[in-house]
Amino acid sequence: MSVTIPAELVKKLRDQTGAGMMECKAALQEAGGDIEEATVVLRKRGLAQAAKKSGRTANEGQIGSYIHTGGKIGVLIEVNCETDFVARTDDFQNLMRELALQVAAASPQYAKRDDVPAEILERERGIYRAQMEGSGKPAPVIEKIIEGKLGSFYEQVVLVDQPSIRDPKVKVEQAIKAAIAKLGENISVARFVRFKVGETN
Amino acid sequence: MSVTIPAELVKKLRDQTGAGMMECKAALQEAGGDIEEATVVLRKRGLAQAAKKSGRTANEGQIGSYIHTGGKIGVLIEVNCETDFVARTDDFQNLMRELALQVAAASPQYAKRDDVPAEILERERGIYRAQMEGSGKPAPVIEKIIEGKLGSFYEQVVLVDQPSIRDPKVKVEQAIKAAIAKLGENISVARFVRFKVGETN
Repeated sequence: MSVTIPAELVKKLRDQTGAGMMECKAALQEAGGDIEEATVVLRKRGLAQAAKKSGRTANEGQIGSYIHTGGKIGVLIEVNCETDFVARTDDFQNLMRELALQVAAASPQYAKRDDVPAEILERERGIYRAQMEGSGKPAPVIEKIIEGKLGSFYEQVVLVDQPSIRDPKVKVEQAIKAAIAKLGENISVARFVRFKVGETN
Repeated sequence: MSVTIPAELVKKLRDQTGAGMMECKAALQEAGGDIEEATVVLRKRGLAQAAKKSGRTANEGQIGSYIHTGGKIGVLIEVNCETDFVARTDDFQNLMRELALQVAAASPQYAKRDDVPAEILERERGIYRAQMEGSGKPAPVIEKIIEGKLGSFYEQVVLVDQPSIRDPKVKVEQAIKAAIAKLGENISVARFVRFKVGETN
């Protein structure tokens, strides 16, 4: 009995490996539809090269960087939009530069709230709860305070929640929203990294 | 019974949290010498802020970046040396630029062989072995061929093993060694990232 393999999966495997259509289909059937596994099957048969990271581009946008004077801190950031036309505008470029500068100066750890792992949130909640032990406050009040403290935590570690380094009264999110309104496309920070010399040791 | 806490560990926790010496020592004892755990203890008592990523600098060096024309590919790289004096020389800066360019063009996945996870090596070995099944070659010969294929794998995915994009007859490692000989300090690539627009989707 063979699994039904969608044509688009076969096409994806062909694009990634350069192997023939029938070979890709057979490999996918053998792998139960798992594309990684099917690639290994093809490679064992000598029909595919080691797959490079899938380079398919779903979004438009730009990669920007910022190196702080002296070269001890550097940032790489990807900001997405919907068309390359918008990605090339001065407004978009300025936003990218500001966001990279924000990451360099304020060292956020996540681009958005959804990127914060659940176990980190649980650890934070546990710490806040312990801090209020014996406070005598009723449970619902304590829960409200915990959510409030979590808000401050987001403002420290989540890029879009951080106060802007240009104007601490404004959140980074608002600068992004202003660009969205002006350019008429959805814009979001896909990812960033911040390197500081020596911190890996 | 209490654990003996080395003075330098207490100092490190103080530097990271800003809490007092006795409080840090007590927290470390409670945490059995685990600095992460001790930080949580201090925070529960309201004695420390959420620790920022430890910024202690063990090595010197620089952070460099390269954005490919059009802004669709970007690289951030950290190269370490022993003194800031060397990090600021033109030779070092040129090496950094060349290495960033190499990462952008040849897309390595690891800085050095030690960074390749053991399970990836095992997967590769398994694939090579399967490719030679039924070849009739004696086992020792097969093992030699496998090691040879692994060498080619390293040349694909490990930065220092890659052929230089400037001169494919020369490995990237040799360019680094030439800089080491000229500048008289140990130089190594600590880490790098390569972003391509849209590849996270």
